[in-house]
Amino acid sequence: MLNQDFIDMCGRKSVIRELFAYGSERAKEIGYENVFDYSLGNPSVPVPDSFTNEMIRLLQTQDAVALHGYSPSLGIDSVREAVAESLNERFDMNYEKEDIFMVSGAAGAIAHAARAVTVPGDEILTFAPYFPEYGPYITSTGASLKVVPADISTFQINFDAFVEMLNDKVMAVLINTPNNPSGIVYSTETIDKLAMILTEKEEEYGHPIYIISDEPYREIVFDGVDAPYVAAHYHNTITCYSFSKSLSLPGERIGYIAVNPACPDAPLLVDMFGQISRGIGHNCPPSIIQLAVSKALYDTADLSVYETNKNILYTELTKMGFDIVEPGGTFYMFPKALEEDAIAFSNKAKELDLLLVPSDTFGVPGHFRISYCIPTEKVQRSIPVFQKLADLYN
Amino acid sequence: MLNQDFIDMCGRKSVIRELFAYGSERAKEIGYENVFDYSLGNPSVPVPDSFTNEMIRLLQTQDAVALHGYSPSLGIDSVREAVAESLNERFDMNYEKEDIFMVSGAAGAIAHAARAVTVPGDEILTFAPYFPEYGPYITSTGASLKVVPADISTFQINFDAFVEMLNDKVMAVLINTPNNPSGIVYSTETIDKLAMILTEKEEEYGHPIYIISDEPYREIVFDGVDAPYVAAHYHNTITCYSFSKSLSLPGERIGYIAVNPACPDAPLLVDMFGQISRGIGHNCPPSIIQLAVSKALYDTADLSVYETNKNILYTELTKMGFDIVEPGGTFYMFPKALEEDAIAFSNKAKELDLLLVPSDTFGVPGHFRISYCIPTEKVQRSIPVFQKLADLYN
Repeated sequence: MLNQDFIDMCGRKSVIRELFAYGSERAKEIGYENVFDYSLGNPSVPVPDSFTNEMIRLLQTQDAVALHGYSPSLGIDSVREAVAESLNERFDMNYEKEDIFMVSGAAGAIAHAARAVTVPGDEILTFAPYFPEYGPYITSTGASLKVVPADISTFQINFDAFVEMLNDKVMAVLINTPNNPSGIVYSTETIDKLAMILTEKEEEYGHPIYIISDEPYREIVFDGVDAPYVAAHYHNTITCYSFSKSLSLPGERIGYIAVNPACPDAPLLVDMFGQISRGIGHNCPPSIIQLAVSKALYDTADLSVYETNKNILYTELTKMGFDIVEPGGTFYMFPKALEEDAIAFSNKAKELDLLLVPSDTFGVPGHFRISYCIPTEKVQRSIPVFQKLADLYN
Repeated sequence: MLNQDFIDMCGRKSVIRELFAYGSERAKEIGYENVFDYSLGNPSVPVPDSFTNEMIRLLQTQDAVALHGYSPSLGIDSVREAVAESLNERFDMNYEKEDIFMVSGAAGAIAHAARAVTVPGDEILTFAPYFPEYGPYITSTGASLKVVPADISTFQINFDAFVEMLNDKVMAVLINTPNNPSGIVYSTETIDKLAMILTEKEEEYGHPIYIISDEPYREIVFDGVDAPYVAAHYHNTITCYSFSKSLSLPGERIGYIAVNPACPDAPLLVDMFGQISRGIGHNCPPSIIQLAVSKALYDTADLSVYETNKNILYTELTKMGFDIVEPGGTFYMFPKALEEDAIAFSNKAKELDLLLVPSDTFGVPGHFRISYCIPTEKVQRSIPVFQKLADLYN
């Protein structure tokens, strides 16, 4: 018979994806320019030329058999080396090739990390608000995901609630900074306090507690914001990176896991990730995409549009009376809804062709997410629509 | 603590990969041209221009944001449609887009299919000789892989042994035709007999028994060989395809699953595959690679070299006294070793810098695999080395 677990998952589709699908249909009816679709986190600026040019160069000049041949299952050596070097230069770390595992985006990275450091019955803690796809990534390993309630005044970590939820079944905490959906960047103070607590608890429980650090938005940090590199602050850090947002390549499914060399099991963990990939038959990311991103490790797409959009939205919405913790990065914002029921609020917005994701699936009630990775002119045209929405509540 | 299952897997590395790694090291010592490396199934002919040209065209002319954007999790609609249409035209089937799931190669396809149609404790049967990576693909789902002993006189199916092993825990049989490592193509008679038995047993057990048909070598069939399209002969067929061998793209990790529309649960299965991908964080193959292969669905690399190589090896080795079932396709051959201990035999060959994979990991003792996806001139130069090896036993 068919496996009921996966049949059940089919019924729990992503709220975000459904809203996005609605927006695409609605655009056909009333025109793309008239739908203010803030639902999906799909980058809106093109990949840098360094990537495109390298892809074309590889295709035009390299021996096709070698170019498209099997990658070693941990990733192409030269690519792993280049990734390690770029992290060392940028964050004053000392990664070696053996600490790097090439993987199909941060999603795969998180799922692999969770699988490696837990057995069924273990717990992984994460902090609200959180990316709802963490649910399937973690539960499919047999471990369970427990959510620490949010500190809604800052969206930094609610440490009292965290400490209360720690227990000796917790093998990892999964953090995401800069954060989807709040846009908040954890401060050095937050990371250091987290590291201190975990170090104490490792001692107390007699086993490692890993930080699985989900960092697809690492390169999207706004002017003047303190954005510490997590692994520099905690030995047992497994950094999960994706080029989706920094290079605007979400569809090309490319990222890496970097295990802090200060973690005693770093090379073993990387070997284990290879075995996990082998078992699910995924093996490794495409050879040509690995090679091309390795030539764009110091580049990003032109990410400045996101800060421009943030400034407009934060200023205008605050003026309208929205209660917002100002984002420090990403292309998300997570204001309080104007009524307690975020779904009802989001539905009222939808009637104005303004697509906002209600907060419930992010583990926080009464808020909504704005994904402002859309053209600035559209952000500007959406301001009167937000005003109409606010007026409904005045 | 770390998950011991994956640590244990690290210790069970692929014999093939290890022999290949030895060959690469040895080539550095004595020169590439002096190592006759028949270990790895890595295609030796370039990808057709249609793929390369389409990649370059996409990169040079398409809007980068759209080109590199998220693919729907089941695959890009136009690609799924094109795959369905090509199968319908070539094999007189009636697939629709909804029956097709884009996936990172046949490996991922098999692992997804196995996960969807079993629960832990169920069994999947396969037939010796078989590709040893089936082990990790199946056991990582929680089901167990049971191997039906080979019919070593033909390498078709040993039906007596098969029927004896069938029981109501068997949810699928995993077949591979054209076969790695034997090179044998299952005849229409074999497929029809298998289908007849399974149809009877479905009735008897009251549940579906799927054929998971692993078909990466489908396009490499030699002159005059009967090579039936499996799904045309059995309703509950899940076809697992990779472009790795037909287009010489093993590193780009691209393939698909096609569920026979005669299978009552076809669209549900495809939806389930999407959820399986979601849970492991893999999501979907890279957008640009999906788009490019969709323009090469009727093309192949120049596969004729494999038949040329087969003819030379089969003729010459048979003359030397090797006992070989003549391959009907692939780039493999699976002769009987000249002593009972295949590992000892392979080690003797290795001393002559002739790298042959011993048969034990394929589930058959006393044979060896030749992967003749190497240049023909090298095949020719290897013949005297095979002769030297044979002479050791005369």
